[in-house]
Amino acid sequence: MNGAGQSTLSRDEAFSRIRLLRSPNIGPVSYNQLLRRFGTATAAIEALPDLAARGGAPYRPAATSRIEAEVAAVRKAGARYLFHDGPDYPALLSALENPPPILTVRGDASLLARPSVAVVGARNASAAAVKLSRDFAIALAGRGYAVISGLARGIDAAAHRGALAGMADGGGTVGVIASGIDIAYPPENAELQEQVASEGLLIAEMAPGTEPLARHFPHRNRIIAGLATGTLVVEAAPKSGSLITARLAAESGREVMAIPGSPLDSRSHGCNQLIRDGAILVQSPEDVIELLIGFEGQPRSTFREGGLEFVVSDADEPADIASLLTLAPVGVDELIRQSGASAGSVQMALLELELAGRLARHAAGRVSLSSN
Amino acid sequence: MNGAGQSTLSRDEAFSRIRLLRSPNIGPVSYNQLLRRFGTATAAIEALPDLAARGGAPYRPAATSRIEAEVAAVRKAGARYLFHDGPDYPALLSALENPPPILTVRGDASLLARPSVAVVGARNASAAAVKLSRDFAIALAGRGYAVISGLARGIDAAAHRGALAGMADGGGTVGVIASGIDIAYPPENAELQEQVASEGLLIAEMAPGTEPLARHFPHRNRIIAGLATGTLVVEAAPKSGSLITARLAAESGREVMAIPGSPLDSRSHGCNQLIRDGAILVQSPEDVIELLIGFEGQPRSTFREGGLEFVVSDADEPADIASLLTLAPVGVDELIRQSGASAGSVQMALLELELAGRLARHAAGRVSLSSN
Repeated sequence: MNGAGQSTLSRDEAFSRIRLLRSPNIGPVSYNQLLRRFGTATAAIEALPDLAARGGAPYRPAATSRIEAEVAAVRKAGARYLFHDGPDYPALLSALENPPPILTVRGDASLLARPSVAVVGARNASAAAVKLSRDFAIALAGRGYAVISGLARGIDAAAHRGALAGMADGGGTVGVIASGIDIAYPPENAELQEQVASEGLLIAEMAPGTEPLARHFPHRNRIIAGLATGTLVVEAAPKSGSLITARLAAESGREVMAIPGSPLDSRSHGCNQLIRDGAILVQSPEDVIELLIGFEGQPRSTFREGGLEFVVSDADEPADIASLLTLAPVGVDELIRQSGASAGSVQMALLELELAGRLARHAAGRVSLSSN
Repeated sequence: MNGAGQSTLSRDEAFSRIRLLRSPNIGPVSYNQLLRRFGTATAAIEALPDLAARGGAPYRPAATSRIEAEVAAVRKAGARYLFHDGPDYPALLSALENPPPILTVRGDASLLARPSVAVVGARNASAAAVKLSRDFAIALAGRGYAVISGLARGIDAAAHRGALAGMADGGGTVGVIASGIDIAYPPENAELQEQVASEGLLIAEMAPGTEPLARHFPHRNRIIAGLATGTLVVEAAPKSGSLITARLAAESGREVMAIPGSPLDSRSHGCNQLIRDGAILVQSPEDVIELLIGFEGQPRSTFREGGLEFVVSDADEPADIASLLTLAPVGVDELIRQSGASAGSVQMALLELELAGRLARHAAGRVSLSSN
């Protein structure tokens, strides 16, 4: 694995971090809590079996052989890891509530420091929308912007192709995929994905070898929206994934832009509705640039600087929280109030339940018993 | 002339009002000031020569023979007069800053009491926009709305035709023309104009016999915007008359709506820009109805109840205002402040200058010396 840029991260600790994140029932929240509590991933992994036992279940961290194979696969793919606290980790993404703790990337990570626009839309787009996607991407990449998209058919592919054709002044394109870094999907975009990796930047959250399952796409969409200063929807059906990406962008305080179309063309309805809901109507790349130049890019919260509301301390004993939980999500604040325990001990109890596979985490920091 | 509905207006006084409005240098502001000062148009006309002489010029009111001919032409056209303080005068129009004091109308004036939408747009509209205009008008007139437009080619004609085809539940169509009530323009819409007059309502501000000159169209646009609860622009070029109508609607506190289109079609740019500037994007007649149902229709000021800021009283002597005026428009407040005279005497002095052809009135009540 290439640890360049992770100046304070030893090879062993980097390995442990990957192993920690791939261990059962570990998500971004518990990963970060464990790092906070134990200082290093190596120490956290040592402590995991004891912690989990207190939650009521035996526990085995991910096997080292599996992580060794993953690291070899990443190296073989010509990729490397980015860790959430490393200097290469994209600042805007780290401003999300629970950003991915580890990414794998191929290509030019300096694109992550460029002003950026996500260009997204339908796979079965109209010819006019494909042309618009390409034209906008050519102009934006030519003005130094990183054009971010999801390497899907239709709008995504046209955006990547346009950016590759037009890139200048440090601009380029970033492809975010739902599979592992070593898997190309859809097959007809395999060549384009390779070109994005060699001339731009390719990003995957999932471990190498992971096939792009339906449940991975919302995570990919969240990264696309989170990487970009603004998200432009070119053409999208109502209730499509592109509109979810737009909503995620809005929730992260980013600009949301949409290209309108005639109501007589049903493929325009998603974008038109988005504009009715508050997205900015854009007609030209200049409209996009004018809008984003004024964007302050202020993260609303930063994972990097300690996005956690509660820091788990050794001094606290875990509270009996399991009895307060049901299948209905509830705020951690409410659990603290009801239990009368300290914030730290409530967080500790939740962590133990999570490791035991008994906890589900929801949006806005809410938790419930797992329905599994 | 048909005085029905003007319950307190005698035949002679109605005649004098028409004569007053058609007299030289009389506009809506001076017309209203003279009615206020002298109580009746008959008394105002008697006083006009003396008043004007104080402004420095001889003055002759419109000849009675000319007004007799006008009244005969209105009757011959099957039309009648509406006066600004009559019960049939449209309430929303009377909420404008200086509404037309007298209108001529043909047809069903009860349409003026219906909820109303102005549907406007380009003369050289695309086939798709013509279809949209017609479809929206069919649906709106079918839901009891009065569809108001300007009887021009393209979007206007399609809106009238759609409303005539779809009208139900008290809905219908209102055509506002820039010519006199007895002139059809453009020629190819003569039959449509006749149908609007017989099945809907036709409105003209200009005296019968007046040809539609370019300078009349802004007045027509202002009436269209002023009659309607909201103005819908279907397709319009940037800087077109339709966008001026939309701006007038917005300035009068009415809803402004626009139908979007692809940026690849330059004919969409006017509407798209309007949406960027704050107009509501609408995709369907239901969008329009939903928006207008919530409209309170509160007039911001009413001519009918005394929209004048200053009432001219007999007690005041005119101030020497001419020396304060230049070709640059200035607020009446500023003139009052600089002259040290009372509001009433400043208004009187302005009225005298206007009658003498030396005053020009501008938007927001500002005045200047006339450049003629």
